[in-house]
Amino acid sequence: MKRKRSIPGLPPGTIHDINGKNLYFPVIVYNEQEVFEKEITEINQLKEILEPEKNTWIQVKEIQKSNVVKKIGTHFALHPLILEDIMDTNQRPKINDFGDYLFLVINIPFLDKITGKMFVQQISLVLGKNFVITFQESDASFFLPIQERLFKNKGHIRNMKSDYLAYALIDFIVDHFFLVIEEMEERIDTLENSISTNDSPEIMHTLHKNKQVVIALRKSILAIREIIRNLEKRDISLIQEETLPFLRDLYEHTIQIMESIEMFREILSSIHDVYLSIVSNKLNEVMKVLTIFASIFIPLTFLAGLYGMNFKYMPELQWPWTYPVLLGVMFIITGVMLLYFKKKGWIWGNREKKKR
Amino acid sequence: MKRKRSIPGLPPGTIHDINGKNLYFPVIVYNEQEVFEKEITEINQLKEILEPEKNTWIQVKEIQKSNVVKKIGTHFALHPLILEDIMDTNQRPKINDFGDYLFLVINIPFLDKITGKMFVQQISLVLGKNFVITFQESDASFFLPIQERLFKNKGHIRNMKSDYLAYALIDFIVDHFFLVIEEMEERIDTLENSISTNDSPEIMHTLHKNKQVVIALRKSILAIREIIRNLEKRDISLIQEETLPFLRDLYEHTIQIMESIEMFREILSSIHDVYLSIVSNKLNEVMKVLTIFASIFIPLTFLAGLYGMNFKYMPELQWPWTYPVLLGVMFIITGVMLLYFKKKGWIWGNREKKKR
Amino acid sequence: MKRKRSIPGLPPGTIHDINGKNLYFPVIVYNEQEVFEKEITEINQLKEILEPEKNTWIQVKEIQKSNVVKKIGTHFALHPLILEDIMDTNQRPKINDFGDYLFLVINIPFLDKITGKMFVQQISLVLGKNFVITFQESDASFFLPIQERLFKNKGHIRNMKSDYLAYALIDFIVDHFFLVIEEMEERIDTLENSISTNDSPEIMHTLHKNKQVVIALRKSILAIREIIRNLEKRDISLIQEETLPFLRDLYEHTIQIMESIEMFREILSSIHDVYLSIVSNKLNEVMKVLTIFASIFIPLTFLAGLYGMNFKYMPELQWPWTYPVLLGVMFIITGVMLLYFKKKGWIWGNREKKKR
Amino acid sequence: MKRKRSIPGLPPGTIHDINGKNLYFPVIVYNEQEVFEKEITEINQLKEILEPEKNTWIQVKEIQKSNVVKKIGTHFALHPLILEDIMDTNQRPKINDFGDYLFLVINIPFLDKITGKMFVQQISLVLGKNFVITFQESDASFFLPIQERLFKNKGHIRNMKSDYLAYALIDFIVDHFFLVIEEMEERIDTLENSISTNDSPEIMHTLHKNKQVVIALRKSILAIREIIRNLEKRDISLIQEETLPFLRDLYEHTIQIMESIEMFREILSSIHDVYLSIVSNKLNEVMKVLTIFASIFIPLTFLAGLYGMNFKYMPELQWPWTYPVLLGVMFIITGVMLLYFKKKGWIWGNREKKKR
Amino acid sequence: MKRKRSIPGLPPGTIHDINGKNLYFPVIVYNEQEVFEKEITEINQLKEILEPEKNTWIQVKEIQKSNVVKKIGTHFALHPLILEDIMDTNQRPKINDFGDYLFLVINIPFLDKITGKMFVQQISLVLGKNFVITFQESDASFFLPIQERLFKNKGHIRNMKSDYLAYALIDFIVDHFFLVIEEMEERIDTLENSISTNDSPEIMHTLHKNKQVVIALRKSILAIREIIRNLEKRDISLIQEETLPFLRDLYEHTIQIMESIEMFREILSSIHDVYLSIVSNKLNEVMKVLTIFASIFIPLTFLAGLYGMNFKYMPELQWPWTYPVLLGVMFIITGVMLLYFKKKGWIWGNREKKKR
Repeated sequence: MKRKRSIPGLPPGTIHDINGKNLYFPVIVYNEQEVFEKEITEINQLKEILEPEKNTWIQVKEIQKSNVVKKIGTHFALHPLILEDIMDTNQRPKINDFGDYLFLVINIPFLDKITGKMFVQQISLVLGKNFVITFQESDASFFLPIQERLFKNKGHIRNMKSDYLAYALIDFIVDHFFLVIEEMEERIDTLENSISTNDSPEIMHTLHKNKQVVIALRKSILAIREIIRNLEKRDISLIQEETLPFLRDLYEHTIQIMESIEMFREILSSIHDVYLSIVSNKLNEVMKVLTIFASIFIPLTFLAGLYGMNFKYMPELQWPWTYPVLLGVMFIITGVMLLYFKKKGWIWGNREKKKR
Repeated sequence: MKRKRSIPGLPPGTIHDINGKNLYFPVIVYNEQEVFEKEITEINQLKEILEPEKNTWIQVKEIQKSNVVKKIGTHFALHPLILEDIMDTNQRPKINDFGDYLFLVINIPFLDKITGKMFVQQISLVLGKNFVITFQESDASFFLPIQERLFKNKGHIRNMKSDYLAYALIDFIVDHFFLVIEEMEERIDTLENSISTNDSPEIMHTLHKNKQVVIALRKSILAIREIIRNLEKRDISLIQEETLPFLRDLYEHTIQIMESIEMFREILSSIHDVYLSIVSNKLNEVMKVLTIFASIFIPLTFLAGLYGMNFKYMPELQWPWTYPVLLGVMFIITGVMLLYFKKKGWIWGNREKKKR
Repeated sequence: MKRKRSIPGLPPGTIHDINGKNLYFPVIVYNEQEVFEKEITEINQLKEILEPEKNTWIQVKEIQKSNVVKKIGTHFALHPLILEDIMDTNQRPKINDFGDYLFLVINIPFLDKITGKMFVQQISLVLGKNFVITFQESDASFFLPIQERLFKNKGHIRNMKSDYLAYALIDFIVDHFFLVIEEMEERIDTLENSISTNDSPEIMHTLHKNKQVVIALRKSILAIREIIRNLEKRDISLIQEETLPFLRDLYEHTIQIMESIEMFREILSSIHDVYLSIVSNKLNEVMKVLTIFASIFIPLTFLAGLYGMNFKYMPELQWPWTYPVLLGVMFIITGVMLLYFKKKGWIWGNREKKKR
Repeated sequence: MKRKRSIPGLPPGTIHDINGKNLYFPVIVYNEQEVFEKEITEINQLKEILEPEKNTWIQVKEIQKSNVVKKIGTHFALHPLILEDIMDTNQRPKINDFGDYLFLVINIPFLDKITGKMFVQQISLVLGKNFVITFQESDASFFLPIQERLFKNKGHIRNMKSDYLAYALIDFIVDHFFLVIEEMEERIDTLENSISTNDSPEIMHTLHKNKQVVIALRKSILAIREIIRNLEKRDISLIQEETLPFLRDLYEHTIQIMESIEMFREILSSIHDVYLSIVSNKLNEVMKVLTIFASIFIPLTFLAGLYGMNFKYMPELQWPWTYPVLLGVMFIITGVMLLYFKKKGWIWGNREKKKR
Repeated sequence: MKRKRSIPGLPPGTIHDINGKNLYFPVIVYNEQEVFEKEITEINQLKEILEPEKNTWIQVKEIQKSNVVKKIGTHFALHPLILEDIMDTNQRPKINDFGDYLFLVINIPFLDKITGKMFVQQISLVLGKNFVITFQESDASFFLPIQERLFKNKGHIRNMKSDYLAYALIDFIVDHFFLVIEEMEERIDTLENSISTNDSPEIMHTLHKNKQVVIALRKSILAIREIIRNLEKRDISLIQEETLPFLRDLYEHTIQIMESIEMFREILSSIHDVYLSIVSNKLNEVMKVLTIFASIFIPLTFLAGLYGMNFKYMPELQWPWTYPVLLGVMFIITGVMLLYFKKKGWIWGNREKKKR
């Protein structure tokens, strides 16, 4: 959600030089027959490793702490704007087709367990004819399961070209959205349950926080859906015919995520309505209690006050039966008021009315 | 509403092996002249039964308890992603054209009578040149009426190709939506009637529940409408010319369902507005009662309290006519207050004002 | 708003056999030179009447009470789905082009004067090269003015082909929408006027009822607009070149109706906002009255109560000037409170503030 | 906002005969060299005036009081539907291209200073190869500035064809929308200022009235924008190449108006939110005052009442120090209550909290 | 947001003559080899400076105070409508392609630190084959960083044609939007934090002000996005092939801005909901305090008043144990009431309920 360059007027494609860690990143080379991993420490080692009949997956981690990106950029002759996009981890998910290679930016969503907010990690991906380069901000090994599939030769991954590897990585990221969706479903269920017994203002804040997550999720998945649609529809030479059904399947997944998010929006909005009406109902209840007490006792208190006056000439005070008569009158008034409130459905009758 | 694969990074097209029941499913073979049903217990039996001039309908039930799906998949050479979609019953309705065969996922909606929520059952359907395969999660005999039409030769079903059978099955499912729509109409009518006499907070929860059903219904029918539109518009070789008017008719039905759902949304939203205003009005009424009682009796109580003071030098207390005069003053104050409230329309006058 | 067939799984195109009234319907035959009407009692009579150089208008009323529809369907070789659509009077407005003839379903809207709700009557229309057949549910003579134009040779109707007659009939139905629009305008004006003087909850129910009418109207006119657009845009061989400007004009009318309906929606929603704010304002007013009375008299009552205590040692009670002083203090308190409330704008000052 | 024909079933193109004023209208003839104005009293005079190398502008005013329209219609061979549209001044803005001539209906908006509502005047315009005919309902001289530009040869108007004159007239009408927009801006500014100091219900009515104006404005400008887009985009033979940039410029203006109107809608909706929250806040304030007064004095009054009881055996009444002690207790209670309310931020503390 | 011409009917393309400052503006001439700046004081000096192999950037400031615009317009043969658009600084951002040159209007947004409102400065830009002319209202040196890049030969700017200079200028303006977006993010964060502790009505006004900024921002960026899309998509001969990736990148930025603005809208709307519910909750809290105090003490006061009556025959008054018994009864009543309120969750219990 940040702007790209911090000072208006800077030339595009500027990368701040980093005197970071030395060059050091793992490379996985595979084809149908074999698979091996190698640690690269010199950029020249890449040349020896890249072979036309083999696919290579280069994983660059902690991009902001090392000087790898620039060197790889030079080695693969990437456009300067791409290098800038890789380094600036506040990018919107996007796809750029440069003919020889494809550049993708995708965000993995995470939910912060403590604050409940959503944050994303940016994965930049360069897909060439026989290589895939992934760039990630952190040191985390997100893609371990994919690596395992490569080494254990599970599914089709070893029999396909590098575009299938790229698909597998994007598929992995989209699956992460499902995890967030599941977490949100639980949160919304909890909200729905708590709202019926509770009018605490904290519910409103939880609602607001969840709305923000839904808004952010929607923004991310919309961009990713667009990317996958482009991969599938646009006639991209790097995407093999056999990979297309998988991409189509992936596209369906993003639509499914979108629809879940739309449902969340509508359900959250409906919960908000329920909450407001519960608050209003509680107020009505409070006011009914006050009104019943006040309306019954204020007239009685007046009557008591009336005969508490000290006028010399108040004949009623002398009569022996006025006190019991007054008590009777007070009882009648109370009874009449209670009947009136019952008729209005403010007391007992209320319950029966509800059940009707 | 669940994610497809439970662990990010699993290769797509994975079917968990099931050591379930033995192979056992009914097959109906028919053409214009004849129709018969056979129980299949060996996958090889299929070969003998499938004849080019006859149409075959294979019904697979309780897919998650048997090992049929995989065997059928191998027999008909279905794409691995399809088999995964059949087994995973949380799919979004969709259509995939593989040239030789057409794969459809459609959801039948049901309303849970007790919780009032909507749930769906997934029907997967594979349409080939002379066969239709249906896969369903449960053991229920949804399609009995279609079977009867086949055996009793009602309508056109026996004279048409397998695509008409597929149409008949989808039509059957869309008709189920009309049942749900009818049920929702009744619910909304009940809500509309109960709201005018009732401000119980339970109404709000009922409203919320119905909104959720409408949201879920809309999601389902939107996807199904899209499927039918594709069947009708896209030039699919498996769909015969004569079936097109029926599909067009079916498409009109899905639009009619969509429009009903849109109406429900708007009416539910309007009921919510009515409910909120009723709650507000009830509060106003409660407060008017309180205000009238308090405003009349609090000044009177003060006056009574005034002459209840024990000052030695209060000449009024000694005069014989102050008590009746005070009573008169109290009556006048009460009258003035009542007139004031009547003028404001808070008492009797209210009714007349309403009628104006 | 009802589902098409009552039992899922019935074959499409099913017409329930009716042992109703005998065949009996009027037919109007006309061309530029002559016009005459004939009562048909035998279906074979139709053959003699239909002449290629003359246009024929067949009016079938009370379709559900007679066995005419099926016979006419057979005579004109209409598709079975059409016959089903004619008999089922819960159809959505639609258009089907069968080459030789055009099938239209259109709804005439009516407002129920007593309940205030909208209901529709379905008109089915088959347009052939030199004939128009209209089917209607009731016995009402909706189209009398069109008949009169035919007999009195008003306007272009006699000089044009059967497609102009179809246009004239649709135009007549669209004009009915303007009647409903006018009625709604009056209702909304009444609502706007009554809302400024009235916070009765009945207004909310009237608002809700009118919203429902607007929702239903919108649904109907949207479908009809689509039909007319298809008539005008789609290259339909049955529609003559000369009729097109009239259809274009008719299309403009439906847009005008749509725009009125959109305005109604927005104005009704704005009235709802006004209503809610009036209810809130009334509550504020009620509470101000209560607060003013309570805040002034509760302290005074306390003071009076204080000197109504029966302590033996209360020197103030003995002093001759404490009573008048206390009265003075009470006056001052009252004055201060009134000034405070005036400053807050809750009394008199309020009015001036309003005018600012 | 009225329906076109008052009785459903009337043939289209019907003009009610008017025995109005005699034929009388001004005609301006101009080309690059010369310009002159002539009053037409006989329809035949038109023939002499219309010259192929000169442009003619015929202004017909008070159309409903004279019989000019029909005569002009016959003279220029206009379609009967056009004549009907000219006479019926409740038309939606529209454009019809008849090849030889172009027919336009455009509405000029005005704001009624007293009621604050918007009303429109319909201008019908027929553009031929070398003539423009304008029809207006009233007698007003809207187009005086255009006339002046013709006579004083300002700008390009004399050097261009009749289509530029038509453009100039439409441009003039669109400029009228800017006047209304400006007036609305002032009104909204006034509303925004008054809302911060005022919770009078009249604000809500003003808001409602302005919403209605915005709704009506939007409806008008949407139709006019569509017309101008058609003039510019559709390949209309009557529109010269040189006029296109001017039309494009005009189109930009209508978009600018649309955007202003959309902003008005959003700002009015936001003002409504502010208003509602102000009303709610005022209620809170009122209730706080009541609660503070009642909560402090009701317990004190109870204590005073307690010692106002006339029990024979109340030892406290006899002790000399109970009265001052009770007074002290009352002070302490008051102090505690005030501290409690201060802690809650209902009194003084409130102000500081606000500033935080 | 103002109308274009102040008097309807003025001919388009009118520029009011200004007897302003003398001609005086800087011109930067550059190519790959060299760069120099020159002050122009005579319009004829331009002729000598413009060379086909060099790019020229003409900066005109304070357009409304000088007579430069007209002279430059004549010199470069610009269309009169362009000159009018440059002079009228209330233009909507737009693009006009005149073949030989491209005309752009773009707005730079600024946030007024004091009032919190947004205002814009209009930049008009004419792009020719080897020149760029910028026109700005104020004297500010917005484009200093671009000038520096030219003089210091940073990035690609010197190696590219004039279209890249135009891109750099637009990019600079779009970067200004990011500054405003950042400022808005901070404001919204502040709002979110303040709302949880505060129900002051000022929050509502801040919210309203921020909504207005968001509305205005959205209007501006929408128009600019459209311009950049046109530059990139439309086949404009003045835009070089090499500049396209930069424009595509810029287009992504405008989408990113749009999405941020949409998020702001939704979050502001959610904050508004939170605010309203907080106000309602506060009211509930206030009313609970009142109701608890009133409901407990009003019955007690009545009892005290009862035994404060002066009837001669009240036997209870004589009994020695009635006073302590009454006190006990009062304690019991108080206890019962407190339990009742605790059960309702209005006191202590409340806190625990919240935590559940």
